[in-house]
Amino acid sequence: MSRPFYEQIAIIGVGMMGTSLGMSIKKKGLCKKVIGIDRNFDNLKTARRLSAIDSYTDCLKDGIADAVLVIFATPILSMFEIAKRIVYAVRKDAIITDIGSTKAELVYRMTELFHEHGNYIGSHPITGTEKSGAINAIDGLYVGRRCIVTPVDTTDRFTIEAITRFWEAIGSEVSVMNPDTHDKVMATVSHLPHVVAYALISGIMEGEKSGHDLLRYAGGGLKDFTRIAGSDPLMWRDILMSNAKEVLGSMERFSKTLERLAALIRDKDMKGVYEFLDQVKDVRRRFTDT
Amino acid sequence: MSRPFYEQIAIIGVGMMGTSLGMSIKKKGLCKKVIGIDRNFDNLKTARRLSAIDSYTDCLKDGIADAVLVIFATPILSMFEIAKRIVYAVRKDAIITDIGSTKAELVYRMTELFHEHGNYIGSHPITGTEKSGAINAIDGLYVGRRCIVTPVDTTDRFTIEAITRFWEAIGSEVSVMNPDTHDKVMATVSHLPHVVAYALISGIMEGEKSGHDLLRYAGGGLKDFTRIAGSDPLMWRDILMSNAKEVLGSMERFSKTLERLAALIRDKDMKGVYEFLDQVKDVRRRFTDT
Repeated sequence: MSRPFYEQIAIIGVGMMGTSLGMSIKKKGLCKKVIGIDRNFDNLKTARRLSAIDSYTDCLKDGIADAVLVIFATPILSMFEIAKRIVYAVRKDAIITDIGSTKAELVYRMTELFHEHGNYIGSHPITGTEKSGAINAIDGLYVGRRCIVTPVDTTDRFTIEAITRFWEAIGSEVSVMNPDTHDKVMATVSHLPHVVAYALISGIMEGEKSGHDLLRYAGGGLKDFTRIAGSDPLMWRDILMSNAKEVLGSMERFSKTLERLAALIRDKDMKGVYEFLDQVKDVRRRFTDT
Repeated sequence: MSRPFYEQIAIIGVGMMGTSLGMSIKKKGLCKKVIGIDRNFDNLKTARRLSAIDSYTDCLKDGIADAVLVIFATPILSMFEIAKRIVYAVRKDAIITDIGSTKAELVYRMTELFHEHGNYIGSHPITGTEKSGAINAIDGLYVGRRCIVTPVDTTDRFTIEAITRFWEAIGSEVSVMNPDTHDKVMATVSHLPHVVAYALISGIMEGEKSGHDLLRYAGGGLKDFTRIAGSDPLMWRDILMSNAKEVLGSMERFSKTLERLAALIRDKDMKGVYEFLDQVKDVRRRFTDT
């Protein structure tokens, strides 16, 4: 497919994610002009300095008025409120997307909201860092990473193709999935691991109330968990809340798995415990291969 | 303290851990001769080639006869059986230790066994890799890492001092702790994280039965878990089994913590979820500092 070119792109929210995306858009030459929209002028100035955007504003309607591609990169729970304020101002031919980490709850509402206004389709680029703010933007953050686009039954083919071309031009590998499947998959491979890491570190803190400086005795394993639990608590609260049903389901399944292993240990079932621990080698190998 | 020097050191089991230790002993010049004892001649030859040992044998009694320091570096559940075979052959003045990852169960039995024979004290160097076998030995594996030595009430002061000097000469940072406290601490900071990682990957595999290639959509978080769950299943079965009581206790506490977080999500308690996720920042910071 030929490289897409947009006259004007608006990025709503120029934090770490939005600014990194702007950097890639500019670098790949995908548009004439990128406008950054934010209430935080530090972020806007930093994004401008990093050449992630060409100009900026804190006025939503001015910012998106001429954009043919509008990208929501704000915290996920704020997106719908912001969308309501711009819905009548978007161009009829504009592609509208977001980079939120959960989809069903947002996508169905956005699809309805933008029904007669522009062409909305959800995106979820699977990338990020533990750090936030434009100052922590990373050139190439999206390159070589997977991006899931989440059309619904009513999304037209042109919109799916347009957003696919956009992400591929950025350098991402695109998968197409409906929003519900997306949320189920993400609950398992991303949200649950985070929940578990947060709970584990929380348990360490409880344990330290006994007076031991437990971290002194931690090996590499716990350090990895600490890194994961070092993700932005505000962002993760929003992810867990906006995907509550699937997250709770995955937590419940996980608790049962854990209880199954506990029972094997309690029963001194050497063979059973070994088999439980050994079964993961297939996953390990596949991860190493990718 | 002056650097210790041993005429002869015997390492029982020259897998990854034992061979790495031999490399450090030789490099630091802590003895005249290191003897490697193993049933696996590939490991013995590799250890010799890596200059981790000076000579080798598959005969336990020959190997330890003249050693003034005997180090058990075999899988933990095999140690006591091996110890019974050499107890009458060890030198009366020998220091005997092991590098097992769990202590109470082993240490109390070893202390009783060696009561009149040599001077036993448990050690647990907190280090390792996911790979096993002499071929994967790492020079410097123990350097800068913590080593917990676990005396009991009857251990004499000379033995504690001798083993402390040995590990410090290797380059480890020594903590002294009784075996029960050790096992409680390790269940929390090491065994539970491993159990959780294994259970999480097991859950991914269950999820894949629905036909999704879930790993394609995994971010960095899951990859860290996969690495942890990539640890040797045989070694970890033995660790979990030999510390079953504390491991089960930590699993139970963890499940309660997880249930507390699930309740907050279920109740749509935005503030509560945020506070739960945010509380770990202190642990994060302390880990970064160390």
